[in-house]
Parts: sequence; structure tokens; C-alpha cells
Amino acid sequence: MSDSPGTVYRAGSSDPSASDLFWPGAERAAHILTPIQLLRTMEDFEAAWLDGLVEVGVAPAAARHELMGVVGVRDLDAVARAAEAGGNPVIPLVALLRERLAETAPEAARWVHRGLTSQDVLDSALMIQLSSACAHLGREIRGQVGALTGLVEAHRGTLMVARTLTQHAVPTTFGLKAARWLDGVLDAWDDLRALSFPLQAGGAAGTMAAAVELASDRDDPVEVVQRLGAHVAGHFSRPPAPPWHTNRAPVTRVADAVVRCTDAWARIAGDVLTLSRPEIGELSEGTGGGSSTMPNKENPVLATLVRRAGLTAPQLAATLHLASAESTDERPAGPWHAEWETVTTLARRAMVAGSQTTTLLAGLEVHPERMAATLAGALPGVLAEQRATAEVLGHLPLEDPRDYLGLTAVLVDATLERAHHLLGTPVGDL
Amino acid sequence: MSDSPGTVYRAGSSDPSASDLFWPGAERAAHILTPIQLLRTMEDFEAAWLDGLVEVGVAPAAARHELMGVVGVRDLDAVARAAEAGGNPVIPLVALLRERLAETAPEAARWVHRGLTSQDVLDSALMIQLSSACAHLGREIRGQVGALTGLVEAHRGTLMVARTLTQHAVPTTFGLKAARWLDGVLDAWDDLRALSFPLQAGGAAGTMAAAVELASDRDDPVEVVQRLGAHVAGHFSRPPAPPWHTNRAPVTRVADAVVRCTDAWARIAGDVLTLSRPEIGELSEGTGGGSSTMPNKENPVLATLVRRAGLTAPQLAATLHLASAESTDERPAGPWHAEWETVTTLARRAMVAGSQTTTLLAGLEVHPERMAATLAGALPGVLAEQRATAEVLGHLPLEDPRDYLGLTAVLVDATLERAHHLLGTPVGDL
Amino acid sequence: MSDSPGTVYRAGSSDPSASDLFWPGAERAAHILTPIQLLRTMEDFEAAWLDGLVEVGVAPAAARHELMGVVGVRDLDAVARAAEAGGNPVIPLVALLRERLAETAPEAARWVHRGLTSQDVLDSALMIQLSSACAHLGREIRGQVGALTGLVEAHRGTLMVARTLTQHAVPTTFGLKAARWLDGVLDAWDDLRALSFPLQAGGAAGTMAAAVELASDRDDPVEVVQRLGAHVAGHFSRPPAPPWHTNRAPVTRVADAVVRCTDAWARIAGDVLTLSRPEIGELSEGTGGGSSTMPNKENPVLATLVRRAGLTAPQLAATLHLASAESTDERPAGPWHAEWETVTTLARRAMVAGSQTTTLLAGLEVHPERMAATLAGALPGVLAEQRATAEVLGHLPLEDPRDYLGLTAVLVDATLERAHHLLGTPVGDL
Amino acid sequence: MSDSPGTVYRAGSSDPSASDLFWPGAERAAHILTPIQLLRTMEDFEAAWLDGLVEVGVAPAAARHELMGVVGVRDLDAVARAAEAGGNPVIPLVALLRERLAETAPEAARWVHRGLTSQDVLDSALMIQLSSACAHLGREIRGQVGALTGLVEAHRGTLMVARTLTQHAVPTTFGLKAARWLDGVLDAWDDLRALSFPLQAGGAAGTMAAAVELASDRDDPVEVVQRLGAHVAGHFSRPPAPPWHTNRAPVTRVADAVVRCTDAWARIAGDVLTLSRPEIGELSEGTGGGSSTMPNKENPVLATLVRRAGLTAPQLAATLHLASAESTDERPAGPWHAEWETVTTLARRAMVAGSQTTTLLAGLEVHPERMAATLAGALPGVLAEQRATAEVLGHLPLEDPRDYLGLTAVLVDATLERAHHLLGTPVGDL
Repeated sequence: MSDSPGTVYRAGSSDPSASDLFWPGAERAAHILTPIQLLRTMEDFEAAWLDGLVEVGVAPAAARHELMGVVGVRDLDAVARAAEAGGNPVIPLVALLRERLAETAPEAARWVHRGLTSQDVLDSALMIQLSSACAHLGREIRGQVGALTGLVEAHRGTLMVARTLTQHAVPTTFGLKAARWLDGVLDAWDDLRALSFPLQAGGAAGTMAAAVELASDRDDPVEVVQRLGAHVAGHFSRPPAPPWHTNRAPVTRVADAVVRCTDAWARIAGDVLTLSRPEIGELSEGTGGGSSTMPNKENPVLATLVRRAGLTAPQLAATLHLASAESTDERPAGPWHAEWETVTTLARRAMVAGSQTTTLLAGLEVHPERMAATLAGALPGVLAEQRATAEVLGHLPLEDPRDYLGLTAVLVDATLERAHHLLGTPVGDL
Repeated sequence: MSDSPGTVYRAGSSDPSASDLFWPGAERAAHILTPIQLLRTMEDFEAAWLDGLVEVGVAPAAARHELMGVVGVRDLDAVARAAEAGGNPVIPLVALLRERLAETAPEAARWVHRGLTSQDVLDSALMIQLSSACAHLGREIRGQVGALTGLVEAHRGTLMVARTLTQHAVPTTFGLKAARWLDGVLDAWDDLRALSFPLQAGGAAGTMAAAVELASDRDDPVEVVQRLGAHVAGHFSRPPAPPWHTNRAPVTRVADAVVRCTDAWARIAGDVLTLSRPEIGELSEGTGGGSSTMPNKENPVLATLVRRAGLTAPQLAATLHLASAESTDERPAGPWHAEWETVTTLARRAMVAGSQTTTLLAGLEVHPERMAATLAGALPGVLAEQRATAEVLGHLPLEDPRDYLGLTAVLVDATLERAHHLLGTPVGDL
Repeated sequence: MSDSPGTVYRAGSSDPSASDLFWPGAERAAHILTPIQLLRTMEDFEAAWLDGLVEVGVAPAAARHELMGVVGVRDLDAVARAAEAGGNPVIPLVALLRERLAETAPEAARWVHRGLTSQDVLDSALMIQLSSACAHLGREIRGQVGALTGLVEAHRGTLMVARTLTQHAVPTTFGLKAARWLDGVLDAWDDLRALSFPLQAGGAAGTMAAAVELASDRDDPVEVVQRLGAHVAGHFSRPPAPPWHTNRAPVTRVADAVVRCTDAWARIAGDVLTLSRPEIGELSEGTGGGSSTMPNKENPVLATLVRRAGLTAPQLAATLHLASAESTDERPAGPWHAEWETVTTLARRAMVAGSQTTTLLAGLEVHPERMAATLAGALPGVLAEQRATAEVLGHLPLEDPRDYLGLTAVLVDATLERAHHLLGTPVGDL
Repeated sequence: MSDSPGTVYRAGSSDPSASDLFWPGAERAAHILTPIQLLRTMEDFEAAWLDGLVEVGVAPAAARHELMGVVGVRDLDAVARAAEAGGNPVIPLVALLRERLAETAPEAARWVHRGLTSQDVLDSALMIQLSSACAHLGREIRGQVGALTGLVEAHRGTLMVARTLTQHAVPTTFGLKAARWLDGVLDAWDDLRALSFPLQAGGAAGTMAAAVELASDRDDPVEVVQRLGAHVAGHFSRPPAPPWHTNRAPVTRVADAVVRCTDAWARIAGDVLTLSRPEIGELSEGTGGGSSTMPNKENPVLATLVRRAGLTAPQLAATLHLASAESTDERPAGPWHAEWETVTTLARRAMVAGSQTTTLLAGLEVHPERMAATLAGALPGVLAEQRATAEVLGHLPLEDPRDYLGLTAVLVDATLERAHHLLGTPVGDL
């Protein structure tokens, strides 16, 4: 699930659609899944298709034409505004491509988009960009795994109190706590790796009839169209797939895996928020955020913003499942349209949260002395379970929490092994 | 709930943040709740507060200064990018205001934002803009009530078949069906009218301690601060309210009422989608949308896009309730931050759906002859209930569906009366 | 919104459907909205309707018959299992009523359910029971307002630190904090009070055609049917309402108000959870819960269970809004069916959470000395805002947090006044 | 993912908790995940653990005792009511086990639950039952794949019109439509197969300290405890797993896969609902459901009830993700408690929907003559795309929709191959 070679454009650093006044940190998601980038990716998909039409001999060589940039950033607003008439932005995009090509490249104008339908272009562009987004998430996770591995190793002997239902329970180590964070992140990684991002090419209603029509002068039109599909898929480094116009598992699988990421990160953030309360003080963000009025404040801003993602992501994924469940006919009226901004928002917010978590972990300050003090203050209660157990056995009660750590060391090792396995996989793969 | 006098700015028509490639029709929400408009509204709130500080005699007359435009569209990206450090955009906005005012208006620089906290500015700006958004929704509803009243009156005698669980049930009229749509819209109107949009002014943690400190040289600082609150509230034509930093009912009430609107509209859209299926053909959108590949298509695009809103709005409101339920401490870490973009998106999408519904209703074509044909084809089944009932009474069965309409006329009249009552209320109020 | 006189049945204390292994505390919701109670309420509605048919002279006097108990608890499982065939439980209920009445009361068997449709019975039963549920919520709130008023008054001078984004902010009082909880509860009360719970009586598709047919031998059948509707509505002490088969605002309004309750309670619970952490220790549940293995534990169990409700309620309400948005035709295929268990679960969980919150508040232990200690430890940081403000004014910094409480007293008084107003309203009303 | 051997109990057929008045069809989920079955499974897990304690030599042979039935159906209500005090049902269950065993089997009473915590028992019981639930879903899917394969093969040449945005698009076949349904179901199967259902055994806070304490007289206590874990896991035919007290991916993965099932089924149901509208009439449920008042009705009841599941499942999964995201500390206060009934409800509803879909597909009636008639009526519009394409090529337009089916045959074959592969996998596996 590496970045596809077809999507290496970079918007200028002044792309305003990458920032968001009301979602602080949005620019961390960079130019993936921004409107500008999605417009370009749709154009790129049309270009690959046009190229394929020539390649398999359906369209004449004269139809080959560089499409990229024919429609560009300057047209974004106009295309967006024209999208309502047909219900999606592909219709005005294709119209504009044809209009602009008409004089200089009439054969390209004639052949562009032939055999496709709007949904092919839009779904494919989303999948290409979601693939980049998930590769981005994977890179963040790789960084986090490195940071967490370091925390686990450094603190495998750092005693602290375990808390259940907010109260002191039994002794544990910060190493084990961080190992559990790491487990969550590794689980998310496993799910990201399992994703595929199929392109969509089904024509008007999933039969590819127009494409076969285009090849109808050839000996084996079906075979020609299959080669066309393979050519376009290959351009984006992925295998051909059957049309999934109304089978939205590709979308919901991405959504679910992405929410698994935000779940894992929000849980880390939640622990940081609790443990950096001044009364606890066992963790702190390296550089806390300020206040507009209180000079004293050092707020755990990154943890706050990561938790925000965890609170909002599940409902976005629910919307995508609903759209999937209601995807009737050969293209549904509404559910499909509900997906675009929902999945875009979900993935961009996850990229932001992932990056913020990486920063958070990199700068996280651990205060073993505060952990030790809390644990000391929690005695003898935190050994009450041991005492009750010892009674069954006729043993003497333990005095030192260090002697009541159970399988902690073994569990930490098992998680570290999982992590080292990931870190040993070659860079470039997710 | 009229538009507040403080918010009559209009962004230039080229405001790109009003359109959205992946939410066709977004520009119908115009410049309400766009990032640019929210930045301006925050600036406006700071301006009203600064003005109030002078007015009640806390700040010197020299502090009075026109703030509007000191920070503007050109700064949007920079403010957005700087927002992460403190977790919200008000901190960099205030810093920029102070910096820009420092030389030319040092007293204004000194006094701006004194007594406030970020949440005051952000919550107030959202409420001011949400008020405009709901006024916009109210205007759409007024238009819809007009259109629906026309449909009801024109078709009170237009027979059609009622459908339950997709199957033909008994006779009804299109007038009654449209009256039921109208009921839904009127219910939404009632809920919009009941809303209030309190400003937020609580200072750092809801005690207004800084403001009272500012007035501490005065005889009755508490009274001075209360006058200050009243002055600012008055500037935006609304009553003062106690701080609601962690009591988020004002937000969830708006959200719930807005979703009631999208519910009502999506249900109309759903009926249009069904009844404009070619096999049924009893309704059609005046101007259907096209396809990127099929010249034959006349898609019910508006209904499709309205239904989209109905499928996505409830989960956004759920997120706001969750944020409300988790609003702990005197300002929560995450839940508050999750609200801003969620409520903004919800309200903007509702404005779009409302406007699209108005257009849809204005152009809706009713085909009584198709309704009559369906009903004729549904005989005698649609009179089976009548037959069973007649049997109990020893009556003869009816033959004409026109004789089996029950209370239809009475029910239509009752709804029309509700509608005329609304249409009789003066324009300007919601 | 008092309990309707028609619903004063009480299931025996052994009604197992009132408890729930996996929702601890479920029995606090007592027998409201249990399957047994809903079966009885449906039977009661059929009884009132049958009585009305006789009363307005449509059915003969011989049709008058006591229905209650004809179908009872013993039939619950059989009715439930038979419900799938027609898609709802009313169909087998009516069949069973007719079957059982056939011999002993043939006229009652003949007339029962005449003029109604399944949806009339089911929607009405839900509304009657939801009315009881909301009256129950209202009684809990009344109790909470009493408890909270006591807390506010007792602690208006109890200093503590205000916390924002988890960190110490400025001084406040526990009285103000409790007043803010109280505000939330009062807002929920206002929303409950505004609810209405219309019965449903529209016949097969909202036209009441069968009922009018039944009255067709009378001079003014329409008037007779209107009297019938009024009679039945009166039996349940509520006004007649037009059919709302596909206009689901009555359901979503209840849902939204109920979630406003769980929001308000979960927020209190969240504060209790934080402040009863052993490192903070400013609050504690009177009687904490134990552990299956750790004798030391005193868990804030009630707060835990109340927060649980806050985390689950919003998504249930979202489902009801979705059902509303998709309520097409004259009775939708699926959305209506999705409502029954969703709204039932939502309301029952809210009753549980409300009762648990009442218990929690009644037993809440406040530890002013811990609050004072935290505040002392937070100096001088918590006066940093004051210092910055004083600097602007050229004042000396304050030393005592007691001097930096701003409008606290005024705000507390305002909320107490709201509360006393509620407590002064006669019992019996919501 | 076969049924675990430890869970082959069957409640008597009169288990009322398997039916549900307000979720028609609930009894199709049989006795999986009912309160009674969950109580038994918790008891079974305690039994396996007790057995393991003896097996690895920690507890004396005298502790070995048959636990099943010590606490039973008769205790369900009492255990449920006692659950609130500690916040979960395991605490009273263990207390009751100890009390009942005290006289007759004092060693068993002494050793039962030693080394465990409530969460171990509850999470494990849920996972064991969820495993059965997913095996049930898998069996349904296998049946559906058989039925769908039959439909696809029978109708690969059955022409019909494809519909996009509700309007006629181009020709297709019912075979391809059914193949797309089949793809969705196969995708769901793939996701079910990928699930694992780890047991939970972490002790008080995930360190297994009590278990290690119990083995502390042995040479290698850690190794003994690992053998204990393996023994218990083996009893339920699954591999040991590290504690996942606060890493809830195991729960959310099940939830996501289950929702993928309901998505796939709801989409089939939605198509059936549309195509069985009388005006379209291309499909019908074998045996439609009746009405309480209209003898004419043959409602598509199964499709209605399946769609209901599709509308409600996504929000339940969202709740589970939220709980996961908020799973802080070593056991969270509220999020964990929110999971139990949510995941139980989700899985039971899915079992119902799966079974209903199987019945629906088995009885589905296809009406090729109506499909042909619709297609004929849709000419020449449905060939407009072909005409436009032909024009580009200078071809003559086609007249026969049969000539415009593109890759339909190839796509159908590819899906059938997927299906035959599944049907060829041995029964017993998921």
C-alpha cells in the first residue's frame, strides 16, 4: 500500500484548503484529499484512461494528450459550483476538459472519458487518494512504533499504579502501559496493511457496455476491454477489480481501519490527559499549549486534539456504513453522494491525529518519581489483592509492589517482539 | 431569531470557501459559517467587547478602535495554521490583533480581549453565525410553506394510491400527502422558532473574575460587569446569558432543531425519488440532472442531494450530544474542540438542503393522470379494507375510490390552517 | 405531562424483563416500556378504542367488553414469535384478541380494532409509555434539583480550583460548579416539559377511511369519527392529533429531550469520576462499589454507569432521526420498524441513568479540605490571570483566591432562582 | 471460527429471552448471546479456569468441581439486580458460586475465580458467544451463497434494466445484479473469516499478578501461569492472547465485520423493496406479510425487517468504537460498561437479519417477463449511451439491448468462481 506513482503532485505550500480554522492541525494532513488534490487525481484518472484507450488500440494515436493541468486550481470553484446540476463534480470536469481540448486536441476531446461514468472517476480518485492517506497513516504508525518501543524499553522497570474505574488497583509498570498503547497501534497497522484500494471502472451501470462498444471493431472486444482495465490499474500500481458501484465494502473497510487508528490514538491521548493532570503529574506533553488569558497554563493541547478525533471519527464511519447499507439499484440516489465528503473528512482528520500523536509521543515526558510517589501513597491498598490471595495459600503478605508484577516482563517482551517485527519490514510498504 | 445586526457582512462572490467540490450545492449556504465569516464574526465580537469596556468606563476612550478588518481574509491561513499551538484559533487571532494595533492604537492593543477567554469568543461567534444560519433555514421554510400550500390546495382532489411497506394500501389524495410533508416542515419551523442563541462571556472559567478585576476601581464592580455583558449582548440583539462553558444545551438544541429540518426535507426527497421512478412517474423534478455518459438520463438530482443531507445529519448531531455529555471540568479537553467543525458542517449542509428543497418544491411537476392510472390499476385491492369493513356492517362494497377518503378533507384543512398562520406572521421574524 | 390515568398498571415485582444482566441498574426503570407493559398498553389502547366505538354509537352496546387481561403475560412469547409474519406484534395481538373473544363476546370480537391499523396501536402504546417514562425522568430531575440546590447552597463559599483542558485555571467555588450541573438539569427539564405525546389514529394510511366507513350510516360520519378520536384521546388525557405515520417529529423530539437528560447527567458523572480520583479526592460517591478480586477498591460505580448512558444515548437518537428522514410513502418499510426497540432502549436507559444520578447526588460526599489543599497547591499559578490583568491597570496583585471570584455569587443566585421556581411548581406536573 | 466446543448448551425452547416483542424475528438468533446463555458461558469460563488451576497444580485436586448449573436460570434476575452494586454481573455471580459451593465443595469455593478479575470473565464470555454468533452468521452466508449462486446461474441471461439515481440507465441482467449481491455477501464472509475471538485473562489490571502469586510456591511461577492460560484457551479451542483490557480492537473488529454483513443484507433487501413495488413487480417475496386491516396486502416483510437491521447496526458499531477510543486507565469507567449490551444487541440483530435474508433469498420470486417489459418500455433511452458511443466510431446504433451487455458474462463468471471456492471449503469452518 505504498503511495501510487500516479499521485506524486504536490500543491504549493499556500494551498489554503490544507488548513482549517476550526480543525486546528489540519495542515498536518498536507495536500492529501484536499479538493485541489482530488480534482487533480480525477484528471489523472481520466488521463490514464485516455492513454489506455490509445494503448489498447481503441482510440487513435492522435487522441494521446497530456491532460494534467488542462483543468486546474483556477477552475476549482467553477467546477464545484457546476457540480449540482448533475449531482457530482465529474460531469462539469469532463465538460471543461472537452471544451478546452476541442481546438488544440480534437481527438483527445473526442475520446476523453469514453467508456467511463462519473462514478468510475470519482470512486477511483477517492481510492487513489485514500491509498495515499493510509500510506501516510502507516508512516505515522511506524514512527510511533519507534517512539513507543523506546518508551517501553526505557520504562520496563518504572513502577506505577494501575488504575481501574479511576481508582488505584494494583502495581504495574509504565513499560507495560506503553506496551498496551503499542498493541493498539500495532493492531491498527495490521488492519491498514490488509486494505486494498480498488479502482472503479464499470461504465454507466457496471457492465462496461460502452467500453466493449468502443472495442467492437476488434476481434475480441471483451479481451480488449480487459486489457484496458489492466492498463489503467497498472498505471496506479494496483490490480484490476470488478465494479463495486453498489458494493461499498471497499469504502467501509477503509473507514473501519482508519477508525481503528483514531481509536488507538485517542486512547493514548486519554491516558496522557489523565496522567498529566497536575494532581497526578506522571506524564506531561513536552510543550504545553497556552491560553488567551491565563499565562500560567500549559495545556496538553496535542492530547486534546487527538481525543477530539477519537470522539468524532466513529460517527463518520457509521455514516459510510449506512450509505453502504442503502446502496440500492445500480447507483443509489443519495447514499453514494453522502460518502465523498464523509470519507474525505474522516481520513484527513485521521492523518492529523496520527501526526499529532507522533509529535506527542516524541515529546512525551515521563515522571517516574511522581509515579513512584503515587504508588507509595497507594500502599497498602494496592497490595490488598495480593494479601487476599496469599491468605488462600497461607503465605505471608508482600510488602514491596515490585514483587507483585506478575507477567509484566513477559507481556512487555511479547509486544516488543511484535513491534520489532514491524520495524524490520522494509520501508516503502505501508 | 432574526439575523443579528452585527453580522451583515458579505464576503465577495469569489469566496471559495462557500463552494465544495464534494458537496454539490454547497454555495447555496452562501457565506454563513464559512471560515472567513467566522473569522470576521470573532473579530466583531472582540470589537463589541472592546467597545463595551470603554462604554462602561473600564477602558479609556482611547481604547475605542475599529477592529473590523485589522485581521482579514489574507490572514486566514496563517491564523488557522497557528491555531494548533494553543488548540484554538482565538489565541493567534488575539495575538495578531494586538500586534497590528500595537503601533497605531496602543490603548486598543492593551485592552482588546481583556476579561474574555478563547471560549467566549469562539462560542459567541458560532452562536451568532448559527443564528444567521437558522434564520436562513426559517426563510427557506417560509418559502416551502408557500409552495406546499399551493400544492395542497391544487391537489386536494387529486386521487392517488397510498403506499405502505411499498405496497398499495388504500386511496388517498396527493393533497393529503403534500399536507403531511407540510406538517413536517411546520414542526421543524416550530422548533427553529423556539431556539435561542446565547452569547458566551464567562472569562477563564465561567466566573468572570478578570472582568470584575478590570472594574475593581469602581464602586460596584459586579454591576459594572453586568452592564458590560448587557452592552455586548445588546450589540448582537440578544439577552445576556449565564456562562455555558460546559453546559452545552445551547449547541445540542440548535443541532436537534436543524436535524428536524433535514429529517423533514429528506422525507419529501425520498417520496420524490420513489414517485419519480419511471415505472411510477407520478412526480418529477422540473429539470432533471444529466449524466456524464448517458444522454437519456433525467435524474432527480435535487431530491438525491437533499436525501444525502438526511443520511448524514443525524450522526453529526450525535457527535454534538456526545461532546455535551463529556463536557467535564470547566472546559473539557477534546469535546469542546470536536464541536466547532461538526456544528458548522451540520448547519451549512442544512442550509444547502433547505435551499435545494425550496427549488425542488417550486419546480415539482405533479402528474395526476399517472396517479389516477396507478389507482385504477390498484383496484379492487385498494378497496379491500372497505369491503371487510362493510361486511361487518352489512353494507354494500364501494366501487369508487373517491368515496373512501375518510377524513382527508378535514385533515388537509387543519394543516392548511397551520400553514396560513405561519404565513401570516410578519416577515423578519424567523 | 403527568402519568396518564390509563397506564397505572404495575407488573408484579418478578417481572424479569425489568432487569438486565448486561445493563446493571436496569430495574430502576421499573416496568415502564418493558415488553409486558407495552403489550398491556397496546391492549389498553384497543380497549379504549372499542369503548369509543360504542360510546359514539358506531358499535352496539354488546361490543363493550373488558379487554384487559384477555391477552396477558403468558402470551408474550407467542405474540412476539408470531410478530414476524406481518412484521409487527399488533397483528398477532389482534388475532389473539379476536380468537379469545369469539365465543364469550362475539360482538367485541367483531368490533375490536375496527378502524385502526397496526401502526395506530403500536405508536400510541409507545407514546403512552414514553409519556410515563418522561414523567419518571421529570420526577428524578425534581429530586436532583432538590439535592443540587442543597449542594449549591451548602458550598457557595467552598473554594476550589477551576480546571480547563485538565489543568488548573483560576479559583472558583464548588457551589458554582454544582450550579452549572443544576443549569444542565434545569435545561433538560425545560425540554421535557415542552414535549407532547400524541396518540396515533389514522387508519390504514392516515385517512381514517375505515372509521368513516363504520360511521357511514350516521348523519355526519366525519363528525362521529372526530368524536371517536376525542373520546380515545381523552381516555389517555391528551388532545387528539392528526396522523403522524410518516412525520416522526413526535418521536425525535422525545428522543432529543431524553438525550438532553443523559447529556446533563453524564457530565455530572464525568466530573465525579475525575474529582474522585484518589490523587484529587475532592468528591466521593457515598458508597463505592467493590471488585471481584481487589478488596481495597471503592469504585465510583454510579458515576461509571451514568457515564455509560451518556456514551450510548446519542447514537440511539441518531437512529431515530435517520428513521424519521427515511419515513417515505404512507408507512415506510424498515425505518418505522427500527424505531420501536431503539426508542424503548433509549428511554429505559435514561430512566436508569436518571435514578442513578439521583442516588449519586443524594449520597455525594464533598471534601472541602481537599479542595482547599488543591487550590493552595495551585498558587500562585491560579492567580496568574489576575496578575496579568492587574498589570494592565497598574494594580497590585491579589494574594487570596477568595478575592478573585468575579460574578460567582451572582451566578449562583441566578441558578438557584431558576431551581426554586421549578421546585415551586405543583407536584404532578412533569 | 467454528463454534467452540465449550458452548454447546441449548436453552429450552421456552427461553423467553430469545424472542422480542419489538424486534420481530428475534428468536431466529436462538439462544446465542441471550442473558441466560451469557450467564452460562460466564459460569463455563469460571469452570474452565478452576479446572486449569487444578490441572497446572496450583489448586488441590479437591477444588475440581462441576460448576455448570450451580448458578442457573433461576438466579438470572437476582444476579442481574445485584450487578449494580459493583457495576457488573460477575461480582454477584462469583459471590453466589462461592456461597453455594461453600458447604458441599469448600475447596472449589475457595479457589473459584482466583487469579481472575470481573473483566476477564465478562470479556471472555462475550468473545465465546460472539464466536458462536459469527459462526451462525457464517452458516447463514453459506446458505445465501448457495441460493444466490442458483439465482445468478438461472438468470445470467435474464435481461432487465439497470437503474441509477432511480432512473433507467442501460440494459443489464438479473444475473449480474444477483452477482453483485453475492459479491457483497462474499466480502462479508471474508471479513468474518479473518476474525479472532481472544479470551481475556489479565487479572486485576492486566499483569496477572494474582495468578503468579498463586503459583509462587512453584519453581517457575511465570511458566505455570502461562500453562494455565494455555489450558483455558485450549478448552475453548483458541490460542492464548495477551490481555486487551483497554485495547478494544477485538471488539471493534467483530463489530465492523458484523456491520459489513448487515450492510450486504440491507442492500439486497433494499433492492427487493424497490423491485417488488407493484408498479415494478420484477421481484416478490415468496410469501408476503399481511396487514391488521387490509386483506389485500402482501407486504415484503422480510426485506422490511432486514433493512431495519441495516439502518440501526452502524450506530451500534460507532458506540463500540467510541468506547474503544475512550478506554483509558487499565479499565475505563463507563466505556467498557457501554460495550456489553451494545455488542450483544448488534450481533443478535445481525443473526436475525442473516437468517431472514436466507429465507428471503430461498423464497425470492423473479419475474423475467416483468423485467423484459420494463426494459422494452425503456427503449430507446436505455440505448442512448450506445448511440452516443457509436457516433464517435461512425457505427450504426444497436437495436437490441441484448447486444449491449458489455462484460456482463465475464463479471458473472468471476463472481461465481469466488462463490464456488467458498462452497468448496469444508463445512465446520466458518
